[in-house]
Amino acid sequence: MTAPDASTAESAAAERLSRLRAELARRGLDGFLVPHADEHQGEYLPPHAERLAWLTGFTGSAGTAIVLSERAAVFVDGRYTLQAAQQVDGALYEILHLIEQPPFKWLEGALQSGQRLGYDPWLHTEDQLGRMKAALERVGAEAVACAENPLDALWSDQPAPPLAAVVPHPQDFAGKASAEKRAEVAKALSDKPADAVVLSQPDSIAWLLNLRGGDVAHTPLPLSFAILHGDESVEWFVDPRKLTAGLEQHLGNAVSAAGPEAFGPALDDLGAAGKRVLADPGSAAAWIFERLRAAGAEIVKGADPCQLPKARKNPLELDGTRRAHRRDGAALTGFLAWLASEAPARAKAGNGITEQEAAERLEGFRRGQEHYRDLSFDTISGSGPNGAIVHYRVTKESDRALGLGELYLVDSGAQYLDGTTDVTRTVAIGAPSAEMRERFTRVLKGHIAVATARFPKGTTGSQLDSLARLPLWQAGLDYDHGTGHGVGSYLGVHEGPQRVSKVPNRVPLEPGMIVSNEPGYYKTGAYGIRIENLVTVVESPPAEGREEEKTMYALETLTLAPIERALIEPALLGAEEIAWLDAYHARVRDSLTPLVDAETAAWLEEATRPLKG
Amino acid sequence: MTAPDASTAESAAAERLSRLRAELARRGLDGFLVPHADEHQGEYLPPHAERLAWLTGFTGSAGTAIVLSERAAVFVDGRYTLQAAQQVDGALYEILHLIEQPPFKWLEGALQSGQRLGYDPWLHTEDQLGRMKAALERVGAEAVACAENPLDALWSDQPAPPLAAVVPHPQDFAGKASAEKRAEVAKALSDKPADAVVLSQPDSIAWLLNLRGGDVAHTPLPLSFAILHGDESVEWFVDPRKLTAGLEQHLGNAVSAAGPEAFGPALDDLGAAGKRVLADPGSAAAWIFERLRAAGAEIVKGADPCQLPKARKNPLELDGTRRAHRRDGAALTGFLAWLASEAPARAKAGNGITEQEAAERLEGFRRGQEHYRDLSFDTISGSGPNGAIVHYRVTKESDRALGLGELYLVDSGAQYLDGTTDVTRTVAIGAPSAEMRERFTRVLKGHIAVATARFPKGTTGSQLDSLARLPLWQAGLDYDHGTGHGVGSYLGVHEGPQRVSKVPNRVPLEPGMIVSNEPGYYKTGAYGIRIENLVTVVESPPAEGREEEKTMYALETLTLAPIERALIEPALLGAEEIAWLDAYHARVRDSLTPLVDAETAAWLEEATRPLKG
Repeated sequence: MTAPDASTAESAAAERLSRLRAELARRGLDGFLVPHADEHQGEYLPPHAERLAWLTGFTGSAGTAIVLSERAAVFVDGRYTLQAAQQVDGALYEILHLIEQPPFKWLEGALQSGQRLGYDPWLHTEDQLGRMKAALERVGAEAVACAENPLDALWSDQPAPPLAAVVPHPQDFAGKASAEKRAEVAKALSDKPADAVVLSQPDSIAWLLNLRGGDVAHTPLPLSFAILHGDESVEWFVDPRKLTAGLEQHLGNAVSAAGPEAFGPALDDLGAAGKRVLADPGSAAAWIFERLRAAGAEIVKGADPCQLPKARKNPLELDGTRRAHRRDGAALTGFLAWLASEAPARAKAGNGITEQEAAERLEGFRRGQEHYRDLSFDTISGSGPNGAIVHYRVTKESDRALGLGELYLVDSGAQYLDGTTDVTRTVAIGAPSAEMRERFTRVLKGHIAVATARFPKGTTGSQLDSLARLPLWQAGLDYDHGTGHGVGSYLGVHEGPQRVSKVPNRVPLEPGMIVSNEPGYYKTGAYGIRIENLVTVVESPPAEGREEEKTMYALETLTLAPIERALIEPALLGAEEIAWLDAYHARVRDSLTPLVDAETAAWLEEATRPLKG
Repeated sequence: MTAPDASTAESAAAERLSRLRAELARRGLDGFLVPHADEHQGEYLPPHAERLAWLTGFTGSAGTAIVLSERAAVFVDGRYTLQAAQQVDGALYEILHLIEQPPFKWLEGALQSGQRLGYDPWLHTEDQLGRMKAALERVGAEAVACAENPLDALWSDQPAPPLAAVVPHPQDFAGKASAEKRAEVAKALSDKPADAVVLSQPDSIAWLLNLRGGDVAHTPLPLSFAILHGDESVEWFVDPRKLTAGLEQHLGNAVSAAGPEAFGPALDDLGAAGKRVLADPGSAAAWIFERLRAAGAEIVKGADPCQLPKARKNPLELDGTRRAHRRDGAALTGFLAWLASEAPARAKAGNGITEQEAAERLEGFRRGQEHYRDLSFDTISGSGPNGAIVHYRVTKESDRALGLGELYLVDSGAQYLDGTTDVTRTVAIGAPSAEMRERFTRVLKGHIAVATARFPKGTTGSQLDSLARLPLWQAGLDYDHGTGHGVGSYLGVHEGPQRVSKVPNRVPLEPGMIVSNEPGYYKTGAYGIRIENLVTVVESPPAEGREEEKTMYALETLTLAPIERALIEPALLGAEEIAWLDAYHARVRDSLTPLVDAETAAWLEEATRPLKG
């Protein structure tokens, strides 16, 4: 990072912080919360909701800032500690670890009795607000809802909300008609019982109505709200400028569209009619609950009823994602073959491939594939020490060449009409060190332990998380991120409700769910290792002739791409681990060879050669 | 079970249920909750609190009944489903699985809007009451606190509260002076901040004041309440008839004793003085919270601050428990040697050792040991199909002889002044089947996986639970209980807050904590297998010359007794598993041989022979 750039950025951050403090003082507030959040609590924010980045400079996908009159802090999780230290001015903000120093705990120490902390009720869920209020109560401070976000008053060039076109998601890819989904969710409502459900998560609405859009980066989501009634009808609140021809016919008579301004009054109507209304306190904005309460609705708190059926992919979605993964694997393999042939020679010639160039080249391989629509997230293309930054994103300033003796980590994925991909490979440029090989092999052992797990119905992802960490633990190592997240079907590359994480998650893994399997190891300032495949939960019947007592599930690996043989230390692998790797590589070779050119096929043949024998 | 006994028991249960319903009707109640609980929410109840057993016949250590005017149900967990089916009249009560059909969920289906459900506010924690009220609110029913428990009105021969003597727990065993403990907990209060804490868990008070008693079975607990103030002084509420000579001197000036009737007024005083009072909503009775609220106290909800320091045993306590485990191992080994020499011959002679006889013989071996005070729980002595009843307790009716070709499971432990033990061994009487050997070996693999786990600081027991289950999962099997519970130091054989369980537990394992390691397998109607050792968390520094990034912990096995070699299928074990077993057996042999007679030593030599070579 060059000096002039940095000081400009720093002075802008200082000026914004000082203007925010003046604005808060004007409103009689002692502080304000700036979460990384929009009105839908989505992970990818539309540009106008990037308030945390605008204020603090921190551009990660999760985090929060708290601004008080004398102190301010930015809280990020382990994936982002390095990035936050680079992007946020430590003279303005304390930079803290979200888990080790939770914001509310910090608030309890920083706030005085009688102080007033402002928040934007659109940007906090009902549950978050409850926890915040409980924390403030402990110190005698007050949470004050701001009808207008004070940052918006200062942000003179704040972008307008996005207006990407909304299009039908064809039945061939969705696998199930919207009417059928609506009937199933309405049935779940009657079991609660509830008369209606308020949907505020855009992916739930996209799934329910078989719609896709483009309001946020890398995820084909239209931002909107909806109310599903027990009679299977839907009121959909969306900017009419986003609607495209043919949509009305696709949606049918049971779905009525209205502008976003009609959402509040529709909540009022539910209250006036004395309806029992389901809303998800874990994902819906506190604003929605407040409006329903004020209108006199009977609120039923419960999980968004679309999330679980959306997570359990139907057979057509699974067929689609398998096809998408073959094409994606062919693209990634083309890239890896190019990298293998070019990177060492260019590094030796002093003209090394840069992270940026590599990311663009990989994107090019994907762009040529059928049904390709977009990347599914910004490619993480990290060489050497940049690989240790878990959610690294290359910039002009950080870009560096892939050097000899270094590791290169590339975590990338794409949105295809028939599926969403997310894959990480770590490769050696030139000869890796013994330590790199040992640690890569431990990560691989963890990856294989998850890939080969067999577990009874009812098992959660949290119960599988340690399997991925054990081989690292044996050497006193670990990684500071989850082992797996849910993945959508031409939808979010991160989705719930299931998760493979040491953080307790009570959602059992069920057939059709897709999760990532991505243990890693990061040596700060040196290198990063991650091996990520997507897997889907499948039934695992007993072997022929064997009786078993439990309904068992297993994981089918979806991702197809070679795992760097040069980084594997075979002496650290057991016979069953070697058998898994060789079988996986045989499958990769057989699946992808027909899809790649002769040169790539020759490289793939070598890259997937069995370890054994 | 013989017919006359059963029908007598059944008609008594029917009569009690019908009288309870009449009493409820008289009070204008539509139902009543009968939890397995006393005023202290302890696991072992004094006889007068055994209301669930008196009403329903179910004598397990966990469960709850709900009696409505037309329906009634008993809810038990997986350990007790078989036992409940035997003890509870299915014509009177639905017998349900606590996890699969949670009581509150059942209530939501069974209660009508406007109905009134009674409860005893002494027998439900504040958290339990909150969940109950939320469930009732969903159906529009009302929770009604009963000042007098309606069962007590019917239970004419209800025993009086116990009056066992309270004695000091000597410093040599406690390892830390009460004044020092009080200072540490008072310091934790000031961090909250809180002015005082209400202690209602008898083990917390016993630990804090270095006292022991005998009010409940198998746990040296005096039942009492206490208030610890920020100035390190304690008000202790205990029946004065339980106090023994010398106690006053042991307690010192900072601890004042008063009768239980003074407890309520003392809570009123806290309120009148406007104190901030810490109380644990997860363990303290709703009655306590209600009284504090009514008195105007400012309630700080938080975990009982004695539980965590109590769980982290100090070095003297750990030395004590290691010594206790050697003596306990010698006793168990004496028993196992006797069993090995007698059981097959007597089974062949048609005069098999009975479960009852075996349990008594084992108790005899323990009774002769130094510092022995009591069993730590009723011995589970189960042969053949009785071994599959997880918390089996032999009765005259259920008693059976240990037959040839059967497995015998014995789960037992003792209270010694210097430590509490809990150990399970499963042995074969005569020749076991191949299936028994295969399944025992899978359980052993799970046991070894936990015993050899190495994990970073911050890891919870929940993160280790799956390690014990994986080898069973591979064969489509599992067990329906936790893998490990905390164990006290001459205190409860079950204690928190840590736990090794698939149920999420957020308490990290810390050095000095003791937990059990007890995977199992149960084939209903055939046999049960469990291998249980106690382990303690220890620091695990890196090997000489190796650098590691994390502070690592490991588990030191405390329990010393041979694991049945005849049930091990060596082909299913890896080299590292065999090495662990052989090293453990060598340690068992070396530790116990000096403590046993020559005949037992000879048997032990054979029983601990290495598998390898």
